[in-house]
Amino acid sequence: MILITNDDGISANGIKMLTNVARSYDDVIVFAPDGPRSGMSSAITYGKPLTYTHIGKRGNVDFYSCNGTPTDCVKLARQTVFKDVQKPLVLSGINHGSNASVNIIYSGTMGAVLEANLVGIPAIGFSIDSHDANEDLEVAADVVRMVLDKYYRGDFDDYYAEANADVPVCLNVNIPVGECDGLMICQQARGMWSEEFEKKVNDKGEEEYWLVGNFINLDKDRNDNDLYALNNHMASIVPVTTDMTLRPCTERMNRD
Amino acid sequence: MILITNDDGISANGIKMLTNVARSYDDVIVFAPDGPRSGMSSAITYGKPLTYTHIGKRGNVDFYSCNGTPTDCVKLARQTVFKDVQKPLVLSGINHGSNASVNIIYSGTMGAVLEANLVGIPAIGFSIDSHDANEDLEVAADVVRMVLDKYYRGDFDDYYAEANADVPVCLNVNIPVGECDGLMICQQARGMWSEEFEKKVNDKGEEEYWLVGNFINLDKDRNDNDLYALNNHMASIVPVTTDMTLRPCTERMNRD
Repeated sequence: MILITNDDGISANGIKMLTNVARSYDDVIVFAPDGPRSGMSSAITYGKPLTYTHIGKRGNVDFYSCNGTPTDCVKLARQTVFKDVQKPLVLSGINHGSNASVNIIYSGTMGAVLEANLVGIPAIGFSIDSHDANEDLEVAADVVRMVLDKYYRGDFDDYYAEANADVPVCLNVNIPVGECDGLMICQQARGMWSEEFEKKVNDKGEEEYWLVGNFINLDKDRNDNDLYALNNHMASIVPVTTDMTLRPCTERMNRD
Repeated sequence: MILITNDDGISANGIKMLTNVARSYDDVIVFAPDGPRSGMSSAITYGKPLTYTHIGKRGNVDFYSCNGTPTDCVKLARQTVFKDVQKPLVLSGINHGSNASVNIIYSGTMGAVLEANLVGIPAIGFSIDSHDANEDLEVAADVVRMVLDKYYRGDFDDYYAEANADVPVCLNVNIPVGECDGLMICQQARGMWSEEFEKKVNDKGEEEYWLVGNFINLDKDRNDNDLYALNNHMASIVPVTTDMTLRPCTERMNRD
């Protein structure tokens, strides 16, 4: 059984396309935010209640809308409609906007994926390198098919086993706009945002700051990362971890 | 110059205590959310404006309140009152509640720390293992002093340099309640939340789900992690990274 969520909300084109592809692999439960939750990272809701509504069924797909964040959706679905299912897989996206490089940190799409990983469920996040909500998603759909073919053939499980990674498959997939020449397994590029806010004065004379930002690729001389893949018409696949320990330092610091 | 923020809001006891300790090391700018933002992870605000207000100055500390998330606070302070400062250091906390183990993923306190790391500024998050907003913070203050003494002596820089970690110091410090027998440099414990929601029926007859949750320590047989430290009356120091690549898998997957 596949659980699908996203951070653009249940009405976004990206989640519709992801659902259309995924339903040919297994039964699907769509359990997604009732509206946009972009930039929510792994935010959770507490101190106020979550609710969800069954909004319909089409073929082998059930649709549920939830008032929470992407992470809330995974948590609540696991306790309700996605509880104790066979062969669970969580998919998130297709996000309208890249989550390559450090954008994984801010991403609600990837927040849902990380949440699945934390509770032992394999999960894959898909994002397209365009913020246009009406972007053509045909190429992205092909990439989703390629990745799910690999997933259901057990390719990723094999990789993980051979690498002695005793964790569920957890992937951040980013897809270029237009043509895609293949998949590239790679690392998260270093990058940062600069000049992030535009200052405006509102009608009351108050200063307001609107997030805009310029992205800076700090690994532009390297060819082993997700930004390189996107810039060279390839879809990037980064295996990700929820263990944020900086290992070399831990080892060094403990030698004293 | 030290920037201090948190996710419990500018009025919390934890940020007051952190500020009281930090001001003896350097000038301080407190730039914190105007109310609680717990569980906000690295969430950012966009599509609506941020504002901030100078709410006072006491000695070498300036206080600013902001309507955004902890991550927003770091971003906006960097573009305004914490721009181009000498020897920048970001501190976050003292959070009321542990951010050990996987709680780092959901933590707004640590979201601010990760944001500083992404733009090249050293940063340390402090949390105490108690959700009591009125918890005694004297021991925690001692731990903050010990960690800042090490920081300003250059101990952490030395560790990072010797480990060839070409990134700013970025630490997740968790502090036990009551006595503290020392500092332990260690890794993030594996863990997860289960049975997360309590179901209630509201006045309108609608089902509501309230986040509660039981935490499960998946590394309870190990003695090298932050939960072990807390359970043994030590403060844990986990050096953390914003590179979420699962390296062994990347290396294996690229061998094909």
